[in-house]
Amino acid sequence: MLPDQQLLRIPGPSPIPPSVQRAMSQPMIGHRGQETSAMLKNIGPGLKRVFGTTQEVAIITGSGTAGLEAAVVNTVQPDDEVLVIVTGAFGDRFSKICEAYNIHTHRLDVEWGTALNPTEIKQYVQTHPKIKAVFSTYCETSTGVLNPINKLAEAVREVSDALIIVDGVSCVAGVETKMDEWGIDVMVTGSQKAFMLPAGLTFIAASERAWEIIENNERPRYYLDLAKYRDNLLKDTTPFTPALSLLFGLEQVLNLMAEEGLEQVYERHTLMMNMTRAAFKALEIPLLTSDADASPTVTAVQPNDFDAEAFRKVIKKEFGLSVAGGQQHLSGKIVRIGHMGYCSPADVLQTISAMEIGLMKIGKNIELGKGTAAAQQIYLNQGVLV
Amino acid sequence: MLPDQQLLRIPGPSPIPPSVQRAMSQPMIGHRGQETSAMLKNIGPGLKRVFGTTQEVAIITGSGTAGLEAAVVNTVQPDDEVLVIVTGAFGDRFSKICEAYNIHTHRLDVEWGTALNPTEIKQYVQTHPKIKAVFSTYCETSTGVLNPINKLAEAVREVSDALIIVDGVSCVAGVETKMDEWGIDVMVTGSQKAFMLPAGLTFIAASERAWEIIENNERPRYYLDLAKYRDNLLKDTTPFTPALSLLFGLEQVLNLMAEEGLEQVYERHTLMMNMTRAAFKALEIPLLTSDADASPTVTAVQPNDFDAEAFRKVIKKEFGLSVAGGQQHLSGKIVRIGHMGYCSPADVLQTISAMEIGLMKIGKNIELGKGTAAAQQIYLNQGVLV
Repeated sequence: MLPDQQLLRIPGPSPIPPSVQRAMSQPMIGHRGQETSAMLKNIGPGLKRVFGTTQEVAIITGSGTAGLEAAVVNTVQPDDEVLVIVTGAFGDRFSKICEAYNIHTHRLDVEWGTALNPTEIKQYVQTHPKIKAVFSTYCETSTGVLNPINKLAEAVREVSDALIIVDGVSCVAGVETKMDEWGIDVMVTGSQKAFMLPAGLTFIAASERAWEIIENNERPRYYLDLAKYRDNLLKDTTPFTPALSLLFGLEQVLNLMAEEGLEQVYERHTLMMNMTRAAFKALEIPLLTSDADASPTVTAVQPNDFDAEAFRKVIKKEFGLSVAGGQQHLSGKIVRIGHMGYCSPADVLQTISAMEIGLMKIGKNIELGKGTAAAQQIYLNQGVLV
Repeated sequence: MLPDQQLLRIPGPSPIPPSVQRAMSQPMIGHRGQETSAMLKNIGPGLKRVFGTTQEVAIITGSGTAGLEAAVVNTVQPDDEVLVIVTGAFGDRFSKICEAYNIHTHRLDVEWGTALNPTEIKQYVQTHPKIKAVFSTYCETSTGVLNPINKLAEAVREVSDALIIVDGVSCVAGVETKMDEWGIDVMVTGSQKAFMLPAGLTFIAASERAWEIIENNERPRYYLDLAKYRDNLLKDTTPFTPALSLLFGLEQVLNLMAEEGLEQVYERHTLMMNMTRAAFKALEIPLLTSDADASPTVTAVQPNDFDAEAFRKVIKKEFGLSVAGGQQHLSGKIVRIGHMGYCSPADVLQTISAMEIGLMKIGKNIELGKGTAAAQQIYLNQGVLV
């Protein structure tokens, strides 16, 4: 292993582009001065484009969980019932936050590795009319599932006025997100995944009808009060001291996304997903999710004839290549590969070819280069799975 | 192509390790103060280990060519004749420097892609007793040849007292260098190749018998006067203002080399060479040099059925992957891949797998993954070519 080389392919934090790293190392400035205001003014439109909304996108200094909590405490009124769809560890987190506030929480568990079923949710909401908000996860980081939140919103709307509240932490900016068009009421994401930044910022936007509820919600809150963030943003400032270096970085991240083009960014993520999936199929290593349910940002594989943890250890030791293991009941049973943010098809080829060596090293007899070749073929097919 | 991603696989400059980049961004300090003296004291032993010498290694602010010129003006006395062995563009440079000083220069051209023949040089020196110095290149960057400088020194010593002066710019710190043991009189290298730094420093060491000549050499010189560097180094300082940020970086580079272990560094380079060569052999793309003459730091291939420049363009466009073309009469005819310094076997796999796509893109019909598999097999064989 080469000292000082980290090949970071976990599903977040993701690597930081050099120009973002440079931007973040700018000297501190006053956060109440004109320069910070100008920066916030500059950041706003880019963030809105990524969220697919005309609403303000609040920038809270905090990790993704702070954003999830903000979604809960701002939208759920004291006597509301809510539905939390749990497709993995991060759906579970939404549920835990609701429980911490003693909110009457309906929990709908979906088998890990499978996407939610909009029809099933629609029926549940229809038979439980007191539900005022439906919490869901866009990409479930713990399984690599991308939930069909557009169809979820559409289905729920047919039978209920419940708000559609989405945790988009591990995919927004890596997959298309059209909050307004799809009727998503609250969307939350974090800085350390497809946003190519260190953790420390969480972004959150709300729909018009969500804002009506937020403004009239009497639940106590202070630091996570979304109205404070929106009202300050409209004056190009922040309610509390912002993590300035991350804002410097965010401004450059949005420049990079504009340079590549958002459509291209999303296509690249889909390409990287398909390359990764094709490689494991060629190597006959089972994928946790179906093609239809798979997320463009993270791929989980579920080995049936080798030790996931031994595999992770050997590629870390040989190449400094980090991939993630499973969480909760999937601990030790799956391997999760992040391909998001500052990650290219060439990085995916590197990851796969190094993993092939890792497989041989732990005694799994594969045909060397077979997974790599399958991924190369996908690249040559312009991303189309064959 | 991912904005802000450069896969730099030219034979120098090479990528900078993150910890070295951070070290170089330290604030400036006074170059006549205690901190700079402490740094120079700390750097000295590490540089000597890399050169395989107990002599002081001068650190000159300048590019490699300044180091080559320093070698000439310090060692060649006004009436001396010299022999320059030209195995490529950088041997040619030594010869041009000698000619610029109107030095009586014997030039011995070797076919590009082939290593020098010590016996032939020995015979030449024996029949030209006025030759006082033999100039040679260790790794010829323009062809990827590693000349057997240990055997050269041994052969010449048998018949002459001529100094053995070596340009080691593109390999020292990537291949074993035992200056004292091998009887090399002057060794020059630069910062931007296996030393993992930006260009801007050249390192040069001289043997005891070279110092005797240097001290008595009346050739005019000032900035490149090696005695000034040595005398100042012995007082932990420099004769002229040093490129401090590069010294900060050099200190950290030597830490990284110590952490990995010099033997491991050299083994890694040999492994990367063998992986690269095995890949091209598997793809049936001709290598410019024989296995025996190949350098662990750079590999040249000579395509016989595709356009080298079109290939370079497509991998740059698709992946931001830079490899070098040919120089002088090999311009447009070869492709040179650098695998030195901050470069790992995983980087070699990435380079090869991306190049395979590039070959398909320009219409060469290869079996995808075949080169990658050959390189992977070498890795699993612990570097042994099969």
